[in-house]
Amino acid sequence: MTMKEKTKLSENSVGVTQTKHFTFEGLTLENGEKLVPVTIAYETYGDLNEEKSNAVLIVHALSGDAHVAGIHEGQNDFGWWHSMVGPGKAFDTNQYFIICSNVLGGCKGSTGPSSINPRTERPYGLDFPLISIGDMVDCQRRLIDHLGVKKLLTVTGGSMGGMQVLSWLIRYPDRIRSAIPIATAIKHSPQQIAFNEVGRQAIMADPQWRGGDYYGRSAPTKGLALARMIGHITYMSDISMAERFGRQKKNHDTHPFKFTADFEVEGYLRYQGDNFVKRFDANSYLYITKAMDNFDVSQKRPLHDVLKGIDTKILVIAFKYDWLYPAYQSKEIARACKLSGIEATYCEIDSIYGHDAFLLELKEEAHLVSHFLKKVFFEYEVTGSYDT
Amino acid sequence: MTMKEKTKLSENSVGVTQTKHFTFEGLTLENGEKLVPVTIAYETYGDLNEEKSNAVLIVHALSGDAHVAGIHEGQNDFGWWHSMVGPGKAFDTNQYFIICSNVLGGCKGSTGPSSINPRTERPYGLDFPLISIGDMVDCQRRLIDHLGVKKLLTVTGGSMGGMQVLSWLIRYPDRIRSAIPIATAIKHSPQQIAFNEVGRQAIMADPQWRGGDYYGRSAPTKGLALARMIGHITYMSDISMAERFGRQKKNHDTHPFKFTADFEVEGYLRYQGDNFVKRFDANSYLYITKAMDNFDVSQKRPLHDVLKGIDTKILVIAFKYDWLYPAYQSKEIARACKLSGIEATYCEIDSIYGHDAFLLELKEEAHLVSHFLKKVFFEYEVTGSYDT
Repeated sequence: MTMKEKTKLSENSVGVTQTKHFTFEGLTLENGEKLVPVTIAYETYGDLNEEKSNAVLIVHALSGDAHVAGIHEGQNDFGWWHSMVGPGKAFDTNQYFIICSNVLGGCKGSTGPSSINPRTERPYGLDFPLISIGDMVDCQRRLIDHLGVKKLLTVTGGSMGGMQVLSWLIRYPDRIRSAIPIATAIKHSPQQIAFNEVGRQAIMADPQWRGGDYYGRSAPTKGLALARMIGHITYMSDISMAERFGRQKKNHDTHPFKFTADFEVEGYLRYQGDNFVKRFDANSYLYITKAMDNFDVSQKRPLHDVLKGIDTKILVIAFKYDWLYPAYQSKEIARACKLSGIEATYCEIDSIYGHDAFLLELKEEAHLVSHFLKKVFFEYEVTGSYDT
Repeated sequence: MTMKEKTKLSENSVGVTQTKHFTFEGLTLENGEKLVPVTIAYETYGDLNEEKSNAVLIVHALSGDAHVAGIHEGQNDFGWWHSMVGPGKAFDTNQYFIICSNVLGGCKGSTGPSSINPRTERPYGLDFPLISIGDMVDCQRRLIDHLGVKKLLTVTGGSMGGMQVLSWLIRYPDRIRSAIPIATAIKHSPQQIAFNEVGRQAIMADPQWRGGDYYGRSAPTKGLALARMIGHITYMSDISMAERFGRQKKNHDTHPFKFTADFEVEGYLRYQGDNFVKRFDANSYLYITKAMDNFDVSQKRPLHDVLKGIDTKILVIAFKYDWLYPAYQSKEIARACKLSGIEATYCEIDSIYGHDAFLLELKEEAHLVSHFLKKVFFEYEVTGSYDT
């Protein structure tokens, strides 16, 4: 990013932010096991209004964290949805109180497999219990309790974030006034499971993984980098890759190794893989992808049955060239909402980016979100019609 | 396969076949290096007619071999395109003389990285030179010389086989009367390169790969299995995976390991990976995928310019749900043929299978091929119009 771009972005920035931590006594997980205690890392921007009616919960995707906007002291990178969150932006911090937390099972401050197991005083590793998307949402509910929020104005997120949004809808319908699931699915297709599975296999095939017991030793960086490379292919589209890389070859000073990264796209993938391992924990990758694969929001029942009677407004957003979470999966959500009588809008954004579009296709997405939010917020302001 | 299916298939079978070997003095490769000597493994079925006008060359995809039809003595599996090749089938062995050879760089009898390097008397490993699709075709040309075939009735193949078909068209247009490229591309897109690259990375990340010098020791089976798993996802389609696996879970007798293959699709991928390593060499995987990625049939020139003046008939076949080699890539081939004045037909088969459809969608494919071949063959029979 150039200095100029950085300055421009910082103009509507929430500024320097800090990750805070909320620890509670623990949680009985969906699978019946107990996790004691639990810490959730989170950030908030803006102020909760007197009526406590302006709280927005943003939930992140597989590799995200609580740092959704602004910049950390001494760091260079803005939060992962910086362009959407800030003064005057789609999630307008002058209007709304924004909350974003790192998911349970993560490695950015929330309790996960790299956390210390109080029973052994060593990192959990594979002793960490299998968690679900519902468990992540249960932790977020505790967090909003802690923050004094009885009803969220909205809960939103893309990809795995969207799964959490759907889970909020089912588990705590009376705690949300609206929801914005983006580029997501009510359950993974076998193709989505398959891509996650090869990522997991890549990690577990790395001898440095050592059955998950690698903390304090060399981490399975090759396996994790490979998982990330596979992921990155699925986040882009055939078209966006062609536009960005073509068949451009990299310049090599010397006669290269036979299987070096000849093409730009190969270099890009290796770079993404190598960068990822510096900031992510391999076991978290296993636990979180497994939670995604096991997610099935309505279990055996039709979704529209489960949704019946819920008083929430929904904005469903999908992207045309997203082939990892194809638009048909978002349409299923919108259809189920309508069948159940929920007020739902479906918008498909015509972006050449693939799944990554929810992080990149900002102008149209920001427009949709900002209008939707204003409408939901304004209705409350006028009628004060929801019970807190 | 049930006994009944097996009997039915064997009814129109070429029967028990044998792989033969043809060794020649060597080859100057496209990159200028010399490979001395070269052995090519091949099979033939049917008889070359007196006019030597009925020879059909079938070229294989990434993991194929010379054994395209029939069964090997003491083995259980039919050749890889058994349903297309045999008496009365699309490639009718009562009519045509069928040739199929293992590619240069392969591991099924042709010279490749697992072959003995005469200079060191040890397997080549990474001392094997980088090969190209053109080099594979040059070897096939030597083979048809050896078999006394001056002009092939057709050359055909899917996927990487299709690349060889296109290369035949450019390199030896006077040696082929027609060509059937199937589910292929004139060059790989960055997405196609990317999938191959993660496969290569998986192999090279396996410590048992040892810089390619693993012969006589444990092979990098985990890495190769992983590469194959990634490949398999790309060979199927979202729909065909959904139809075949859904979200069906596997039955586990005991409480399973946390990251075991819970879903059918996971078990399927692991099975495919584990099976593949028994029959394929990891270094061959590296060399062959690199040849595919480097392939660009017309180099910097427009394909229709390069094709101008070539007297050949072309049948281009693509499959609707093939997202690895999408139909638009096959249309490019047909368009270039037409622009250059070549008689070309484009057919898109409406199959739910993805890229694998060329091996599975047999009825329609067989129909197209059989009619096309008859027409080309009959024209010769009537006019005897091509010079041998």
